[in-house]
Amino acid sequence: MTEKKKVTKIGVLTSGGDAPGMNAAIRAVVRTGIYYGLEVFGIMRGYNGMLEDDIIPMNSRSVANIIQRGGTILKTARSKDFFETEGRKKAYANLKKYGIDGLVIIGGDGSFRGAQKFANEFDIPCIGIPGTIDKDMAGTDYTIGFDTAVNTAVEAIDKIRDTMDAHDRLFIVEVMGRDAGYIALHSGIATGAENILIPETKTDIEALIHSLTEKEKRKKLVNLIVVAEGEEFGGAEEIAKVIKERVPNADTRVCILGHIQRGGAPSCHDRLVASHMGYYAVESLLIGRHNVMVGVINNKIHYTPLDMAVKERQAIGQEWMKIVKILAS
Amino acid sequence: MTEKKKVTKIGVLTSGGDAPGMNAAIRAVVRTGIYYGLEVFGIMRGYNGMLEDDIIPMNSRSVANIIQRGGTILKTARSKDFFETEGRKKAYANLKKYGIDGLVIIGGDGSFRGAQKFANEFDIPCIGIPGTIDKDMAGTDYTIGFDTAVNTAVEAIDKIRDTMDAHDRLFIVEVMGRDAGYIALHSGIATGAENILIPETKTDIEALIHSLTEKEKRKKLVNLIVVAEGEEFGGAEEIAKVIKERVPNADTRVCILGHIQRGGAPSCHDRLVASHMGYYAVESLLIGRHNVMVGVINNKIHYTPLDMAVKERQAIGQEWMKIVKILAS
Amino acid sequence: MTEKKKVTKIGVLTSGGDAPGMNAAIRAVVRTGIYYGLEVFGIMRGYNGMLEDDIIPMNSRSVANIIQRGGTILKTARSKDFFETEGRKKAYANLKKYGIDGLVIIGGDGSFRGAQKFANEFDIPCIGIPGTIDKDMAGTDYTIGFDTAVNTAVEAIDKIRDTMDAHDRLFIVEVMGRDAGYIALHSGIATGAENILIPETKTDIEALIHSLTEKEKRKKLVNLIVVAEGEEFGGAEEIAKVIKERVPNADTRVCILGHIQRGGAPSCHDRLVASHMGYYAVESLLIGRHNVMVGVINNKIHYTPLDMAVKERQAIGQEWMKIVKILAS
Amino acid sequence: MTEKKKVTKIGVLTSGGDAPGMNAAIRAVVRTGIYYGLEVFGIMRGYNGMLEDDIIPMNSRSVANIIQRGGTILKTARSKDFFETEGRKKAYANLKKYGIDGLVIIGGDGSFRGAQKFANEFDIPCIGIPGTIDKDMAGTDYTIGFDTAVNTAVEAIDKIRDTMDAHDRLFIVEVMGRDAGYIALHSGIATGAENILIPETKTDIEALIHSLTEKEKRKKLVNLIVVAEGEEFGGAEEIAKVIKERVPNADTRVCILGHIQRGGAPSCHDRLVASHMGYYAVESLLIGRHNVMVGVINNKIHYTPLDMAVKERQAIGQEWMKIVKILAS
Repeated sequence: MTEKKKVTKIGVLTSGGDAPGMNAAIRAVVRTGIYYGLEVFGIMRGYNGMLEDDIIPMNSRSVANIIQRGGTILKTARSKDFFETEGRKKAYANLKKYGIDGLVIIGGDGSFRGAQKFANEFDIPCIGIPGTIDKDMAGTDYTIGFDTAVNTAVEAIDKIRDTMDAHDRLFIVEVMGRDAGYIALHSGIATGAENILIPETKTDIEALIHSLTEKEKRKKLVNLIVVAEGEEFGGAEEIAKVIKERVPNADTRVCILGHIQRGGAPSCHDRLVASHMGYYAVESLLIGRHNVMVGVINNKIHYTPLDMAVKERQAIGQEWMKIVKILAS
Repeated sequence: MTEKKKVTKIGVLTSGGDAPGMNAAIRAVVRTGIYYGLEVFGIMRGYNGMLEDDIIPMNSRSVANIIQRGGTILKTARSKDFFETEGRKKAYANLKKYGIDGLVIIGGDGSFRGAQKFANEFDIPCIGIPGTIDKDMAGTDYTIGFDTAVNTAVEAIDKIRDTMDAHDRLFIVEVMGRDAGYIALHSGIATGAENILIPETKTDIEALIHSLTEKEKRKKLVNLIVVAEGEEFGGAEEIAKVIKERVPNADTRVCILGHIQRGGAPSCHDRLVASHMGYYAVESLLIGRHNVMVGVINNKIHYTPLDMAVKERQAIGQEWMKIVKILAS
Repeated sequence: MTEKKKVTKIGVLTSGGDAPGMNAAIRAVVRTGIYYGLEVFGIMRGYNGMLEDDIIPMNSRSVANIIQRGGTILKTARSKDFFETEGRKKAYANLKKYGIDGLVIIGGDGSFRGAQKFANEFDIPCIGIPGTIDKDMAGTDYTIGFDTAVNTAVEAIDKIRDTMDAHDRLFIVEVMGRDAGYIALHSGIATGAENILIPETKTDIEALIHSLTEKEKRKKLVNLIVVAEGEEFGGAEEIAKVIKERVPNADTRVCILGHIQRGGAPSCHDRLVASHMGYYAVESLLIGRHNVMVGVINNKIHYTPLDMAVKERQAIGQEWMKIVKILAS
Repeated sequence: MTEKKKVTKIGVLTSGGDAPGMNAAIRAVVRTGIYYGLEVFGIMRGYNGMLEDDIIPMNSRSVANIIQRGGTILKTARSKDFFETEGRKKAYANLKKYGIDGLVIIGGDGSFRGAQKFANEFDIPCIGIPGTIDKDMAGTDYTIGFDTAVNTAVEAIDKIRDTMDAHDRLFIVEVMGRDAGYIALHSGIATGAENILIPETKTDIEALIHSLTEKEKRKKLVNLIVVAEGEEFGGAEEIAKVIKERVPNADTRVCILGHIQRGGAPSCHDRLVASHMGYYAVESLLIGRHNVMVGVINNKIHYTPLDMAVKERQAIGQEWMKIVKILAS
């Protein structure tokens, strides 16, 4: 929240991993900008579009009928060059061609770090909108895409449970989350998983093996384990190896949900949050609340300086793990 | 939050209008109860089961494989007799037969009023869990079922938009909400509705007709109006009458989404919230935090005395309506 | 299947009521045309685009990423003027401007009648692709959109059943089908409806009332009635009136599914059939198999002269109604 | 279609891999049996239930509210012991205890082989209902579960396409089908896959690499490859290895859809076909059309002697592969 500078032409881009709801955010930025008399440009493929002069004028119709679409009409990418001084100079030169004097970046913490650097160097105000399915960011309770991703995981695991129950099997389902276990934790509780393994906690493999062995003795080894990618042992395949060795009679199967979690029509919540964040991002540019990320904390819009909007591993409350244990029993 | 009394046998029931996620709450109450050594009974069809002695013992397996199901395995109803002193006496007599000394009621404000009376008269501690798709309750940001209902509405309206756009039509879609416009407001923003009519605000019919007439002049009368049941004029059919008379050239269609909004597999959020509320409801009975509703405020569990957990029409922030207007343009 | 004429530039249009899968058919027509060296034009809003010169050149990218979309990117409409000689003359004049010498019409029997007239008068070969959710056409077992519409109906009725069971209610659900009962019959059997009322059979209201009264005596009046729009009595509301009068204790509710049945991402089957039909439509233009509708009979592509591709009410086999009765009991 | 024998008590079981729609078939068998005055027993976990005397009486309510559920309420398994003479003797002894004199087996060709042996040895008439997501059986155009599985695959791939397009990536998606490419072929065409690799055809890896390399030169390497498990090279991971080596600049990702394809609410078509097959299976037992599989050929019920109802790899028509090529271009 630094200097005041009158903004008249803004660029919007999506950067980093894509997340359902990014299109709803783009739409909100474009239409709010136009409403307030700004010219709005779409920058393609993250910061690459700035480097390669792939920048297109947008109007209200450019964003018609996209609120319900997964993916991002502006495409997204990671850009190494933008993290070099040379790259950012080139990017700035291209923005100047269009007269762009404000940016909205929809992405994750890496993208925001780049934005902060850029803002510092070239005095272009930047506003961040948190778009990542992982939800692990400081300064906001929600990130765009998480709610859709977790519902996709739940629907997939519901299907897996059908076949698991039909065959009395042990399933290990891996969901996304290299650093954060939110998708695993939420989808695991929502599908009645017996065990949930996440990066935030140590995986107690002995306790797991013990409980499976006990179940096997009672001839009832139907068991659902939901695992985050970034779990200590390295995910579903690694856990499966241990189980197959230590509980050889279990009829064990592995499913890795993978990229389906990144696509699909966004949920109501993701569209709603994205719409609000897009609106407040443009408002922030206009009133001089610069270089912040727009977040939501306790159901209220909240602004965090871009350089503090970092990936943040939150402690998972003890009650959560207790609830997992009690409810799956 | 009154007296302390040791609880050993509890009953759980669903009452009033059903809502997706009620089964997840039942499951959490039953399993948490059993975990803490309680006996748990299911009471069928709301308070009617108490009056008619339709009460069944439940164990952990009674609630297996229901977390993903819509509806309620205990069925639900409204009970007039329970609102008579005679009825409550009979209900109490039946509970005594089983030794039930604590109740968890999953329902809305009407159900909670009954519970409060019953608790006062017979010294049976009651805990309420807010289960209603309408979301309009004091003491909680969420009610079980709202998130599912609103996503069902969004999916339905997305489909309607396909055919609306194909034919350049004007659609008036009615969603549930006799007293509250949340479903209309959330689903309307999420589907890019041009107009949203809700009970909380006066319907400015002249402004609506004016904007439609303007659009018609420009030969572009594709327009989505989302209307809550309880809107001032009386819902979609009434609004359609006015429009057909005043904008006769519009190709106007009405869709009333109706009861599909009450069913279906609950969303991840509804299952999660229901699971937590069920857990904390039983904990409340155990530690003597009696005659409260378990709610969630600002992402934290929050308890409200049952008689204060009333239907509450919240003011809709001005920004919300502004965002509707800006984003649909 | 008349004269041979070399075709080089073709137009494609969607006409009449829209149906999910029309976009998949458009895509197939455009890409097959281009593959075979034709120029392809999109004609907007059915025959209106021909009358008003709303015709756009299409290439392979025009139809990228549409196979999964409901609606039709070419929009659709009914055109009165095209059914006048003057109108068709104007349409022909506009086609000549572009050199269009072949047409693919995706629509229903009304659209095909217009096409046949046009083909006769101006020697422009026309190929029909059956696109209608109603499925009631001679010359084909499938029409594009039916499979999606019926699955949408099934998903909606599944949700309604959740709330019906929770409350022990009687639901009357109306699905589309002014002349044909296929959607009602298929969705009714698939959702375990107790009664299915369709235009193809007389509605035996006395038998219906009798069975409901019997159920009521046994205090188990949970009952699902699926009704086609074109049912003898006039649909769900009319049936409800009779039931409310004759079985007043029933807790009766009406749901009219309406236009959600026309939208949504097409099912695999609709996309597949549409893709094949689009391919064979262009092939037909090329090899001189003119003025036919492309259909599928017994899983094989089948061609019917356009003037014989009429709406056809098929007799519903007696076993079907027997199965309804046996399985719902 | 052999001897006539009066059947009075029948058993129904699901065997082999589970498939969505099996519950609809069980329901139809039970209710049709009861309608015709038979006693009906459910046999748990395939032939294992016969061997271990895990057999339960069923009535109309046993199958209420299951038509929409994935999995199988009777559970399923493969049984080695039933393929030994000793096992079948034991099974017969158990059936005799209940007086069961007819069987309906819902499963695949392995299950039918066992049934034929059993029928020959013990003169218990057996009727097969084809339940397998793979669709590759002689004697029927449809098998229960295929339509649901292929729609699940399509919905998943639609989501993957969102993220594929956002990032301009190359995705290799593996669907089920160890011996048959139907799921790959149908879901691939329906999602606009550029390449479809199936067991029925030789994988021309050089042509594939060539086309990818050409695309890469034009800087447009967005490409979807759908692969059946049983494809010549061994599935998605193996194909990915080759591509990563030969087209190293491609941003290649692998998704294995896995067991989600076996679960979920069955599609309308699967419920409908299962309901019909269940009805005709019981009818067959009653009228002495014994030891056959009930199939559907050209939309008509068709009976095949059980020993001829084998897995059958059908030739994939040349037009299909041509259509894949033309439409994805």
